[in-house]
Amino acid sequence: MIIKFKKSATVEQIQASKNWLIKKEISFQEIDSDNYTLLLLIGDTSHISIDTVQALEGVAEVRVIQEQYKLASRTFNQYDTIITLDNGVKIGGENFLVMAGPCSVESEEQIMEIAKSVKKSGANVLRGGAFKPRTSPYSFQGMGTDGLKLLEIAKKETGLAIVSEIMEASQLEYFENVDILQVGARNMQNFELLKELGKVDKPVLLKRGLSATYQELLMSAEYILAGGNKKVILCERGIRTFETGTRNTLDITAIPYLKMKSHLPVIADPSHAAGLSQYVEPLSMASTVSGANGLIIEVHNDPKNALSDGAQSITPIQFDLLMKKIVKLRKVILDD
Amino acid sequence: MIIKFKKSATVEQIQASKNWLIKKEISFQEIDSDNYTLLLLIGDTSHISIDTVQALEGVAEVRVIQEQYKLASRTFNQYDTIITLDNGVKIGGENFLVMAGPCSVESEEQIMEIAKSVKKSGANVLRGGAFKPRTSPYSFQGMGTDGLKLLEIAKKETGLAIVSEIMEASQLEYFENVDILQVGARNMQNFELLKELGKVDKPVLLKRGLSATYQELLMSAEYILAGGNKKVILCERGIRTFETGTRNTLDITAIPYLKMKSHLPVIADPSHAAGLSQYVEPLSMASTVSGANGLIIEVHNDPKNALSDGAQSITPIQFDLLMKKIVKLRKVILDD
Amino acid sequence: MIIKFKKSATVEQIQASKNWLIKKEISFQEIDSDNYTLLLLIGDTSHISIDTVQALEGVAEVRVIQEQYKLASRTFNQYDTIITLDNGVKIGGENFLVMAGPCSVESEEQIMEIAKSVKKSGANVLRGGAFKPRTSPYSFQGMGTDGLKLLEIAKKETGLAIVSEIMEASQLEYFENVDILQVGARNMQNFELLKELGKVDKPVLLKRGLSATYQELLMSAEYILAGGNKKVILCERGIRTFETGTRNTLDITAIPYLKMKSHLPVIADPSHAAGLSQYVEPLSMASTVSGANGLIIEVHNDPKNALSDGAQSITPIQFDLLMKKIVKLRKVILDD
Amino acid sequence: MIIKFKKSATVEQIQASKNWLIKKEISFQEIDSDNYTLLLLIGDTSHISIDTVQALEGVAEVRVIQEQYKLASRTFNQYDTIITLDNGVKIGGENFLVMAGPCSVESEEQIMEIAKSVKKSGANVLRGGAFKPRTSPYSFQGMGTDGLKLLEIAKKETGLAIVSEIMEASQLEYFENVDILQVGARNMQNFELLKELGKVDKPVLLKRGLSATYQELLMSAEYILAGGNKKVILCERGIRTFETGTRNTLDITAIPYLKMKSHLPVIADPSHAAGLSQYVEPLSMASTVSGANGLIIEVHNDPKNALSDGAQSITPIQFDLLMKKIVKLRKVILDD
Repeated sequence: MIIKFKKSATVEQIQASKNWLIKKEISFQEIDSDNYTLLLLIGDTSHISIDTVQALEGVAEVRVIQEQYKLASRTFNQYDTIITLDNGVKIGGENFLVMAGPCSVESEEQIMEIAKSVKKSGANVLRGGAFKPRTSPYSFQGMGTDGLKLLEIAKKETGLAIVSEIMEASQLEYFENVDILQVGARNMQNFELLKELGKVDKPVLLKRGLSATYQELLMSAEYILAGGNKKVILCERGIRTFETGTRNTLDITAIPYLKMKSHLPVIADPSHAAGLSQYVEPLSMASTVSGANGLIIEVHNDPKNALSDGAQSITPIQFDLLMKKIVKLRKVILDD
Repeated sequence: MIIKFKKSATVEQIQASKNWLIKKEISFQEIDSDNYTLLLLIGDTSHISIDTVQALEGVAEVRVIQEQYKLASRTFNQYDTIITLDNGVKIGGENFLVMAGPCSVESEEQIMEIAKSVKKSGANVLRGGAFKPRTSPYSFQGMGTDGLKLLEIAKKETGLAIVSEIMEASQLEYFENVDILQVGARNMQNFELLKELGKVDKPVLLKRGLSATYQELLMSAEYILAGGNKKVILCERGIRTFETGTRNTLDITAIPYLKMKSHLPVIADPSHAAGLSQYVEPLSMASTVSGANGLIIEVHNDPKNALSDGAQSITPIQFDLLMKKIVKLRKVILDD
Repeated sequence: MIIKFKKSATVEQIQASKNWLIKKEISFQEIDSDNYTLLLLIGDTSHISIDTVQALEGVAEVRVIQEQYKLASRTFNQYDTIITLDNGVKIGGENFLVMAGPCSVESEEQIMEIAKSVKKSGANVLRGGAFKPRTSPYSFQGMGTDGLKLLEIAKKETGLAIVSEIMEASQLEYFENVDILQVGARNMQNFELLKELGKVDKPVLLKRGLSATYQELLMSAEYILAGGNKKVILCERGIRTFETGTRNTLDITAIPYLKMKSHLPVIADPSHAAGLSQYVEPLSMASTVSGANGLIIEVHNDPKNALSDGAQSITPIQFDLLMKKIVKLRKVILDD
Repeated sequence: MIIKFKKSATVEQIQASKNWLIKKEISFQEIDSDNYTLLLLIGDTSHISIDTVQALEGVAEVRVIQEQYKLASRTFNQYDTIITLDNGVKIGGENFLVMAGPCSVESEEQIMEIAKSVKKSGANVLRGGAFKPRTSPYSFQGMGTDGLKLLEIAKKETGLAIVSEIMEASQLEYFENVDILQVGARNMQNFELLKELGKVDKPVLLKRGLSATYQELLMSAEYILAGGNKKVILCERGIRTFETGTRNTLDITAIPYLKMKSHLPVIADPSHAAGLSQYVEPLSMASTVSGANGLIIEVHNDPKNALSDGAQSITPIQFDLLMKKIVKLRKVILDD
């Protein structure tokens, strides 16, 4: 952390800041130039609040040099985290994991048909929403626990692992047989939920918030890791920008960035990013060659009668064609 | 809602869409031009998902003409909602409400000193965080229920109403004596929490999310209103933009916009918007003359030793000077 | 400037960077901690490109501590710049300047009627577009030199100073009698134009680009100042954000921020910021109490037949009422 | 275009709007529902200003249904535009064009070495800046006409076509031997420049502005096309968002979006998008598989001594490895 004082800061103000640091047992180095004085704090300053430092009298600016996340950082763990699901499937490192399925579970027939089909095309995990976070209180809110039960049936029948969104810690009891707990973008900074997921022994798929920075996503992962749960999967799903031609803007650079800064697996969600099925193929391919460890894709057997997100769902046939291309692209990438 | 078909859409595709609408008992009007066909849906379409319509074959684009919120809309209730707190203080309409206090409750001494001082300066409500949503798991997380108890003591002593943030529905039992329940920006789309607050008979202060549109804020208010709780206060607290010179960007236009579209009271939070105490005065004044129904301001008796948000807190003396200006500005506004 | 090396940087890489700095005659201080090495450059580093430093081997990150603008900075000139127009009117310091008029000059009758009316209401400068930057090549592109001649007539008749937009250096010859040269938001980083305006002895009204940071706006001002022209007026006119409920988002905090960092006058353009006439009054008032040195407002005698920007223009009657409020608010502000 | 009236609009106001449309010879259809009246304008409304319509009394909202660009739209020209350079190289359709070279031309030795090397690796066009738009007036501003002469020498020696940035119409005379005229992101809405380039018989590489929407980029292309120059190449180069971990955010979806909406070739600039050389490879590969018609990449033989943009330049060796991967990925894509 670097503290820059105002040109007008008095000697007493600077001394008061130094005393404050000494009291907090923080080492620092002073640099005086013509126009200002700097204090450079040495060692671990992650327990010092920037806000408080900023409030010291005479301070012009405070900059953080060190990352504020630790357990999520590659600095502290240089090897890729590899997570193994109960059915033996792995994610992270060289493993590539494809999760596919409908936005919402709607009926046994629907989920079974889709599950069998995506499995055949090469998916490893079945996705399906049971508790749905919807902008409008008048929209379909999901089948709830009944939806989870249908997912479990599909899991038993196909051997696919299952992933579904949890919206509140109190729902944890219903997710016993769910293999991966998904935290939605709107809950990325629901810290009460993150704290509870830190105590669970299950992989958590943490989606990046619509306007969350890389640093904030990694800090939210840190909440889960700090609680003791080391199985966190990061997910880029599009951010909110000024562009309205697409629903969100897939931040493709997030993939190499997060993989450089963190050892956690990083996947992409091309379906939510653009909001239209025609972009799912190009964005899936782009994410794959950018180094993603996997994809989560919305597939629906009858998009125009889907109860949610029909516009961004691809059909089982489109998914099958896409998977064939992904396999070829992975080969090019791994050949290097 | 308007459905625009692709130039390449076939007669069969358009007919299929029409049949789908007829089955859903939605009236529509057809307009054919050289380049495209439009269907204009008539009446209430708020139960139709845009996503599903978008997924109909041959559809190029779907536009929504009607607002998706109803109970929050001025179209359905043209008179300003006025909320009366237990101590008789009102918010909404011509009433102007100032909430002030520290970011976090830290000790009895601290909260009592600040409470007395802001009351003397003219504040009507005491704010203070007990459960704190922090980006980092290593930051001070608030005093929890002990903090709420200290707020209650200050309430008894001063007669001020109190407002504090609730982070999860399970905490509701601790908020019995809290007059206004605050939903933080990061929880604006925590729909499980909103649903629970819809069942409570207490005013809810709903903060706009960092990247939430006006429409989304009003839809989140709709969740609470639809549950039966009509006492919602909207709060503009700065949005996330590309500018990094300030923590957030206060969207001052949100105030007249929300007041035009909705009958709910709208207040501003100048402290979180800019993140630095020196901007609290100009932003408070700007919000006041823009038509805000109130302000929520962070005041701390010792900002440089505050456990959170010290940089953006003003001192009791600064608050007192600010209140004097606000009173004068209100007079100019009301003179009209 | 601070250079942070990667944990994996070798001693040789760090030494090479140090040699490179020595060759460039830049002093620095080294700080070594457990996890990384920092070099802190001392003195003026504004001639060193961050890009080049970033490219040195082993470098993880580069941070700039010093502002990159000088002539525009309050550090180098703490007193407010006050600009006097030919008709004796001043802007900057305690002076408040209101510029008003139509988006585009359309006819002699139109500009004369508006000029007389805004003068009567208290405006000091007449605005009017002759060369119009329009998103579409099919939109009205302005009357060009004929428009400027009509402005000159209005100037002679009323004694008002005039301001109009210049889009290219080659147009300078036509602007001899224009008192203030306006640089539009889309040209804020048209550096060839800025360089030419640096050689002119005329005030320049520099509008902030739609996605320009405070720093970039001040760097563009620096181009003009560095050329020798000290008469620069900064203008906040709304930035582009994710919000589509209004055309742009007025960044009200820009006003106190820019006034703190720079000695140049700062005005606000409430008409372009929100894009709808109903927001002009609240935004004008908000800008005034935030410390703006003036306003530029679109006024049209017949908005619904305006050739451009009709939706955001207010009528002369609305302008007159607004001016009365502004006068009262200025009194409250100056009373302090 | 759709005009929605306020609930409170009077019969006279609606009639006045209808009369206004009739006078302008615009056909329309009226739709009346419980809460509002709509007028749906039929036929080509691209000559009607939204602003003016918005200003009609009683109007609540105006929506545009039709695209405002025509010559750039696939609706009017469904076949891919293919541009052939003087050296026979093509861009557009199935052709893939790689432009590579330094940010700035610095010396004959530098540009010759890089030119030969990128040619060997498979590039078709040599890029190099002569006139440089720099945020700071104190940064290196390019070699100007001397730089262009060095590019011409390299062109003669290697047979590569050349592309360089033009900043003002007055510079056109120096670009006679330059094969592709580049318009930088900051000049995307420098309409005077665009108008002049519409009169030239040379391909124009139009970069997307930092906060320009797809629609605005296509409208800027329309300026050039409407002038008579049909050879426009669109370029996605990263947009400005809230994320500061990378310099800009590459909007990868822009590639399939622009290719769907327009017949013009679309390329990507991975170097400027992220601002760091380590992201050039993943972003180049992602752009390729997303359907880009080409790439423009900064290559420097000595990045750490580059006069500009060293941090984002890759070395000739890295470029050679990247080209090998691109070739393999193209094969996968074209196999379909």
